[in-house]
Amino acid sequence: MSDILRRGRLSKSPSEEMRAYTSSMDADKWIFEADVYVDMAHTLMLQEQGIISKEDCSKILFGLLQIQEEGMDKLDFSYEDIHISLESRLIDIIGEEAGGRMHSGRSRNDEVATCIRFALRGELLSLLEDLMKLENTLTTLATNHIHTLMPGFTHLQHAQPTTFAHHLAAHADAFERDIARLMSAYERVNICPLGSAAFASTGFPINRYVTAQRLGFFGPMTNSMDAVSSRDFLIECAAAFANIMINLSRMAEELILWSSQEFNFVELDDTYASTSSIMPQKKNPDTAELMRGKSGTVVGSLAALVTICKGLPLSYNRDLQEATPHIIKSANVTDTSVRMMTGIMETLTVNADIMEAQSIAGFTTATELADTMVRDAGIPFRTAHQIVGTLSKTTTNPSLSEIDAVSSEILGYKLSDKGLTEEAVKGALDPMSNVERRMVVGGPAPIQMRDDLTDKKKRLSALQKQIWDMDLAVEKALEELTEEVKKEI
Amino acid sequence: MSDILRRGRLSKSPSEEMRAYTSSMDADKWIFEADVYVDMAHTLMLQEQGIISKEDCSKILFGLLQIQEEGMDKLDFSYEDIHISLESRLIDIIGEEAGGRMHSGRSRNDEVATCIRFALRGELLSLLEDLMKLENTLTTLATNHIHTLMPGFTHLQHAQPTTFAHHLAAHADAFERDIARLMSAYERVNICPLGSAAFASTGFPINRYVTAQRLGFFGPMTNSMDAVSSRDFLIECAAAFANIMINLSRMAEELILWSSQEFNFVELDDTYASTSSIMPQKKNPDTAELMRGKSGTVVGSLAALVTICKGLPLSYNRDLQEATPHIIKSANVTDTSVRMMTGIMETLTVNADIMEAQSIAGFTTATELADTMVRDAGIPFRTAHQIVGTLSKTTTNPSLSEIDAVSSEILGYKLSDKGLTEEAVKGALDPMSNVERRMVVGGPAPIQMRDDLTDKKKRLSALQKQIWDMDLAVEKALEELTEEVKKEI
Amino acid sequence: MSDILRRGRLSKSPSEEMRAYTSSMDADKWIFEADVYVDMAHTLMLQEQGIISKEDCSKILFGLLQIQEEGMDKLDFSYEDIHISLESRLIDIIGEEAGGRMHSGRSRNDEVATCIRFALRGELLSLLEDLMKLENTLTTLATNHIHTLMPGFTHLQHAQPTTFAHHLAAHADAFERDIARLMSAYERVNICPLGSAAFASTGFPINRYVTAQRLGFFGPMTNSMDAVSSRDFLIECAAAFANIMINLSRMAEELILWSSQEFNFVELDDTYASTSSIMPQKKNPDTAELMRGKSGTVVGSLAALVTICKGLPLSYNRDLQEATPHIIKSANVTDTSVRMMTGIMETLTVNADIMEAQSIAGFTTATELADTMVRDAGIPFRTAHQIVGTLSKTTTNPSLSEIDAVSSEILGYKLSDKGLTEEAVKGALDPMSNVERRMVVGGPAPIQMRDDLTDKKKRLSALQKQIWDMDLAVEKALEELTEEVKKEI
Amino acid sequence: MSDILRRGRLSKSPSEEMRAYTSSMDADKWIFEADVYVDMAHTLMLQEQGIISKEDCSKILFGLLQIQEEGMDKLDFSYEDIHISLESRLIDIIGEEAGGRMHSGRSRNDEVATCIRFALRGELLSLLEDLMKLENTLTTLATNHIHTLMPGFTHLQHAQPTTFAHHLAAHADAFERDIARLMSAYERVNICPLGSAAFASTGFPINRYVTAQRLGFFGPMTNSMDAVSSRDFLIECAAAFANIMINLSRMAEELILWSSQEFNFVELDDTYASTSSIMPQKKNPDTAELMRGKSGTVVGSLAALVTICKGLPLSYNRDLQEATPHIIKSANVTDTSVRMMTGIMETLTVNADIMEAQSIAGFTTATELADTMVRDAGIPFRTAHQIVGTLSKTTTNPSLSEIDAVSSEILGYKLSDKGLTEEAVKGALDPMSNVERRMVVGGPAPIQMRDDLTDKKKRLSALQKQIWDMDLAVEKALEELTEEVKKEI
Repeated sequence: MSDILRRGRLSKSPSEEMRAYTSSMDADKWIFEADVYVDMAHTLMLQEQGIISKEDCSKILFGLLQIQEEGMDKLDFSYEDIHISLESRLIDIIGEEAGGRMHSGRSRNDEVATCIRFALRGELLSLLEDLMKLENTLTTLATNHIHTLMPGFTHLQHAQPTTFAHHLAAHADAFERDIARLMSAYERVNICPLGSAAFASTGFPINRYVTAQRLGFFGPMTNSMDAVSSRDFLIECAAAFANIMINLSRMAEELILWSSQEFNFVELDDTYASTSSIMPQKKNPDTAELMRGKSGTVVGSLAALVTICKGLPLSYNRDLQEATPHIIKSANVTDTSVRMMTGIMETLTVNADIMEAQSIAGFTTATELADTMVRDAGIPFRTAHQIVGTLSKTTTNPSLSEIDAVSSEILGYKLSDKGLTEEAVKGALDPMSNVERRMVVGGPAPIQMRDDLTDKKKRLSALQKQIWDMDLAVEKALEELTEEVKKEI
Repeated sequence: MSDILRRGRLSKSPSEEMRAYTSSMDADKWIFEADVYVDMAHTLMLQEQGIISKEDCSKILFGLLQIQEEGMDKLDFSYEDIHISLESRLIDIIGEEAGGRMHSGRSRNDEVATCIRFALRGELLSLLEDLMKLENTLTTLATNHIHTLMPGFTHLQHAQPTTFAHHLAAHADAFERDIARLMSAYERVNICPLGSAAFASTGFPINRYVTAQRLGFFGPMTNSMDAVSSRDFLIECAAAFANIMINLSRMAEELILWSSQEFNFVELDDTYASTSSIMPQKKNPDTAELMRGKSGTVVGSLAALVTICKGLPLSYNRDLQEATPHIIKSANVTDTSVRMMTGIMETLTVNADIMEAQSIAGFTTATELADTMVRDAGIPFRTAHQIVGTLSKTTTNPSLSEIDAVSSEILGYKLSDKGLTEEAVKGALDPMSNVERRMVVGGPAPIQMRDDLTDKKKRLSALQKQIWDMDLAVEKALEELTEEVKKEI
Repeated sequence: MSDILRRGRLSKSPSEEMRAYTSSMDADKWIFEADVYVDMAHTLMLQEQGIISKEDCSKILFGLLQIQEEGMDKLDFSYEDIHISLESRLIDIIGEEAGGRMHSGRSRNDEVATCIRFALRGELLSLLEDLMKLENTLTTLATNHIHTLMPGFTHLQHAQPTTFAHHLAAHADAFERDIARLMSAYERVNICPLGSAAFASTGFPINRYVTAQRLGFFGPMTNSMDAVSSRDFLIECAAAFANIMINLSRMAEELILWSSQEFNFVELDDTYASTSSIMPQKKNPDTAELMRGKSGTVVGSLAALVTICKGLPLSYNRDLQEATPHIIKSANVTDTSVRMMTGIMETLTVNADIMEAQSIAGFTTATELADTMVRDAGIPFRTAHQIVGTLSKTTTNPSLSEIDAVSSEILGYKLSDKGLTEEAVKGALDPMSNVERRMVVGGPAPIQMRDDLTDKKKRLSALQKQIWDMDLAVEKALEELTEEVKKEI
Repeated sequence: MSDILRRGRLSKSPSEEMRAYTSSMDADKWIFEADVYVDMAHTLMLQEQGIISKEDCSKILFGLLQIQEEGMDKLDFSYEDIHISLESRLIDIIGEEAGGRMHSGRSRNDEVATCIRFALRGELLSLLEDLMKLENTLTTLATNHIHTLMPGFTHLQHAQPTTFAHHLAAHADAFERDIARLMSAYERVNICPLGSAAFASTGFPINRYVTAQRLGFFGPMTNSMDAVSSRDFLIECAAAFANIMINLSRMAEELILWSSQEFNFVELDDTYASTSSIMPQKKNPDTAELMRGKSGTVVGSLAALVTICKGLPLSYNRDLQEATPHIIKSANVTDTSVRMMTGIMETLTVNADIMEAQSIAGFTTATELADTMVRDAGIPFRTAHQIVGTLSKTTTNPSLSEIDAVSSEILGYKLSDKGLTEEAVKGALDPMSNVERRMVVGGPAPIQMRDDLTDKKKRLSALQKQIWDMDLAVEKALEELTEEVKKEI
């Protein structure tokens, strides 16, 4: 069969190289499933609106069901995209007299935009599910470690003692924002361009509400020129993915640091490690390193998308085709990375004794000592800061008399004369009592941490319900669509 | 006075060059106003919680009010950041005995995070206001042009006739999504890290809810380590800004095209144009070109932010300081660009006659002709597509007899025998009747466009109310804070 | 067979998902050919240095030749990379007793770095060849169009008349710099990390000069830690590719503009165009649009590479594996884009008459008119600029008397009284005479253009010789290596 | 005085906001010095070519010398750029009759391109000088540490022992490539667009060779349209800067790691460190952190430049103005970062004893043990790898009898029966003897390292001479230009 598109207007065929250069077939595998559903919903509507006959409708749906079953293997990949390839296959099966009517009242411009949104919606839902699993893993792990002391870091220097729970919950809270971002992006993804045709909609009396609803979208995307031209939803999603990957890269960095001989805070399960081809003793945290590296890949997709869209006039330009593979790639890398991180954390060996031993190294209790001077001896914080800073040049565990010596020099009097006791100093220098005092909301005190984790679990459970509802709405729509299709043939 | 920070722990002073390299004072101008408010709210709370005395509180607030009045001119810019500079100024005014107590129960880590969120919140609100103005300008202009025909483009080729209103509304709908994105980001910006201190909160019995509320935040940002470490909100905002700029770059591209001798669809007001230093006849659409270029600047800020955050372990690292100037820059460029675009559109001369004349050039009515064949002669769309494609090689205004000749060749019969009339052909080939048929939701038919614009105006007015409420909430909080401060001194 | 790497140190196998996440097998197809050569050169050297026996050497080379012949089909793709897969296949063929000796004195770290440089070298050579073809095409086309007038643009406004040759040569000169950049990058790509082993070289008495020379490299890359850790050569190449793509995107933009109904300067051959699924009259410059879009893809690869490398400590980290696919992708997209552009330009229809007609529209001759006033009437340029600017508000083809009227108003005297003649004015306003006067080096005057193109052809022919020499040096080395291998078995 | 540019063609003035939006005055400070030189060289040439009179030339040069002396303070910053501001100031000083003639035969398009290349050339020369200083510092430090053992890392795991010299030399070799890249870029920066005028050169009989030579350029940039349109040299330089910053970010990462309590390999001098506002004991490696962060800023500039240039048609578009600030910023950040790194390394405290103690931790000698088995017992490397891998599960310091036990299990015989001795095992396990065996070129053996460093110093000294020559050539040209100017007035 001759090319159903080019046979009219163009005299020459493209070369093999030009075909490869311009074809989107590789990326289009991602939207095959979507495209069949879109064809079905469009066909049903055409018949309802009296644009095609019941008989033609029935034939087309029959062909589409067969194509859905066959999968992509029967498609001719030499076409420039999946839409034409699919329409051609349809015409092969049921003939042009009926098959040639399916594309009435639409264009590939609205078709592909609808398919991308359909497929991306699926990616968002999977990713949300997987982020929820990571959240649950982190929250459970944190719950188990509310008493596990560790040194908290700023500037990668020991700063103050904290708990492993507090550290894990910090990451978990960041991913909670990532979930919120995806759910917000979903609002702008799950709308339906179908019926916008090339960009000016169509003179056929189509019904855009009914196709949108059947495909599980919130509704039609209003302006038909905007609907086929805009890819800001891809940039938004890629940016949300990049944020997730950056958050993962930070966890990955810590896992790599903590797996080093120097830190030795954790050990990755063998499943997530590799060895060396030459150094037989090595156990490398490869999965974490790759995850850190893959953040670059997702950043690259974001940069690509932005650059592609920059400066394009309306409405559809073929440049937009080049955008799709970047969203597929970045969605996929992000989702598998989230799953790998969940696996790593579920199987992680935590060397709690080493963490605890280190929690005090580097005079991490200095802040609390200064605060104690403020509270008990009534001096200003800035002055206490100076006294402890001076002490820290020579000791990490000062006695009251050492403190008095320095305060005498700086203030002209001893802090023990102002109410600072040996006991208070000892309390300040003990890491667990140190942590227990940090009972402010969001702080590491075990009692506070337990409350914060309980609140978090409630929020997560509400989120999970919302995500399941989103999932269900889509599934239900597609099931009903399939049933209607089967009824028509 | 010696450096209140370094005097304790460090023996040597930084060199002038190192000072310049590490100083954030330049960017910190952006947060000066915020920092004074943060200091005030923190001080009031310290007193309420019994951490400092009423007297010390009163002195500190007095000093802060004076600093607020003085502005930045009295600050010593040789300090490494605004926080220390401001605290030093305070101590200059009221002495270390009281002034040295202000920094109790917090750290620069939570302080700067709070200030950035405070200032960025202000930028978001301004930007939202300015986007609303652009929306209103575009909507009004569209309303005036629902009958102005123009050629719609795909691949920058004339494709089908549409109206200028339809084209403008496409851009307006894109900016509506930008507004939604900013409002969603606002949820994650307007939360308060204050009280997280270095990252482990504090042993002082502070009240994080009350400071958050006084500063106009939704509430405290829970986990204290997350609160000082995370900058994902900057990435999210920069990505939202980039999306706006990309949308603007697309409009700018069109304005540049349309201002060319070849298109001549519009003329920018002299205010937004420039001439040449050598070619005296030139009138260049410079503002639009610069706007297109500035999209690159905002993309650069996004790339910088992502790269800066990649692979950083928790909690605070000094790298984060380098992030702030990028968000200031990108917020500022985006906001001024939006305002410039509003000005350009408000003063634009539209050459409606040229647009209308061009609306039919390039056989833009071909789709409607094919659709008419489908509707009136009952042939499949794909076949009609082939017939019109063949016709288009030789004519852009085919007569019924020409159509019959081609259909005879392809189908073996004349379409006039199947119901196609001369009148129907003429209707299809007339651009206005062509557009009037596109009455689908989101389509360019004037009657439809009027409805869609009415709906849009309703949505915009609801949005405006929401934004005003957000604005008001912040303003009210800060006014009340100021009053409380004044009462205390 | 159990995993030859993991069997020693690690107890558990990776899951299927972890395997997929960490495997580089997909990208490694790109280095299969290189890896076999690297193995051969390394094995020959091991034997020469007495590290393995002549017999073992012979067996290994036999196995490698077989693998070279078999291609990748016989490799087990479940291994984590091509190196282990290839070594395993070798051991399958000749046994571990001999096959297990091939990896002596090296590591995968130096092996993969060598393979990437080997394969990238090949990409650079192909790309250089293809850029030379594009240069020749552009230069030939320019030579044919030194008399074809067209409007030159600044700010997309008609500015001054020029020729199509001048415009084409501008692009050609830009690509000449791209060639220079690639040739400079080649110096830093074609050096050999082999023998650096994991990063600390090896205690075996290997000879790094001889392997480097046999593989066609300039020599060994000195510091062994640097040799396995650095990927700056990938960033440099990706940046050079991005520069090429940006240059192509600018040509593509022009082709798209010029193909529009409004400009109609050129028509792409059908081979490089497509039509619409709905608008049968359309002929779209898709190849140019995709090329413009693909510039974003290459920019994305550059951003990814930079982000991946940022902040990595020495020496090898697994993150680096994630870098390779980006260089493959960007090299490939750039090379095919260059070839497509050559094809487009070779088959382009140039509407010279339309270009010439437009060359004068928009008062493009205004600068020359002002210059003529300066030369003939002796007034300052800045004053002439004002006179012509004023004239341009009402006419694009002023007569001497109109000029006199304006000059009288501004200067108080007529320019005709100062030596300006009707004839001189006419000369200035004629586009061809206008262009002919621009005889400065690099200017569009046909006589000058011919000289400049002659110079350019000389430069290109010298460049071509250099590239052929680079190509030949590599080919010769590999042929000799193959012969030596065959001699040893 | 009315605006010398706009007074002709445009009726309305720009608003204050539009002025700020479109003005480049801020960035133009960077090219003020260049612009005066460019004006001087151009004026001298105009007179030599008979385009202006000797008298006018003398007046203009007088005015320019005065402006050079005054500096920027006397310029009116309300103009849209420095060129017009400078020309206006000139006309203020010497009147329009002479001053209005300076701009003959050129345009701001070629003027600004020349100025940017002039100023960027200066940045490249400074950066080259500063990189040479860093090279010398690293090479000297390495020379002092050829016997300082340290653990070498792969995957941040202890891998094999190496020396601090070897590690430092790895970084030094990377920066040597950065120098080569900059010198290559210099070839494409130091060429002169002047005389290209708006893009079509000029009808005046100017001499482009003489202006190029007087300004210290290699020669004129041929095609006049290319000369004003292309900014690929900015992208190339920004990419070279990004490569430098990425290399610095990797060193910075190591300095941060090594300063941690866990590693404690080095201590930054107080000059390059800071303390905490709340944790008085802290000494933070802030300068290294900021340097790591600033790599993001330079990456952002690169991304901005690429995005700005994408898809721009020829010739000059105002977008290009937005490119300049990014190259200024990135050049400046890179240069100061290089200088800071030099300072850090010059003052670094190296805890050699800790490094040495750690050089053996983590069984870093395992590879050498396996290699020893291969050499002394004649087994294949892959088998030795398995034996040592198995040993490493239980010990990091195996005895011969432990080895025999494992080999018996795997191979069925003892390695001591095949020639492996207790002494050989001990030698393999000693880190210094381990390192001393790595005498391959580029390896860490002290004797080899000394040779490699001697070679490196020779290369550096040759490079330094080259850079000084480049520097001198520019300086000499500008001195001669100044003398000629003074002679003319």
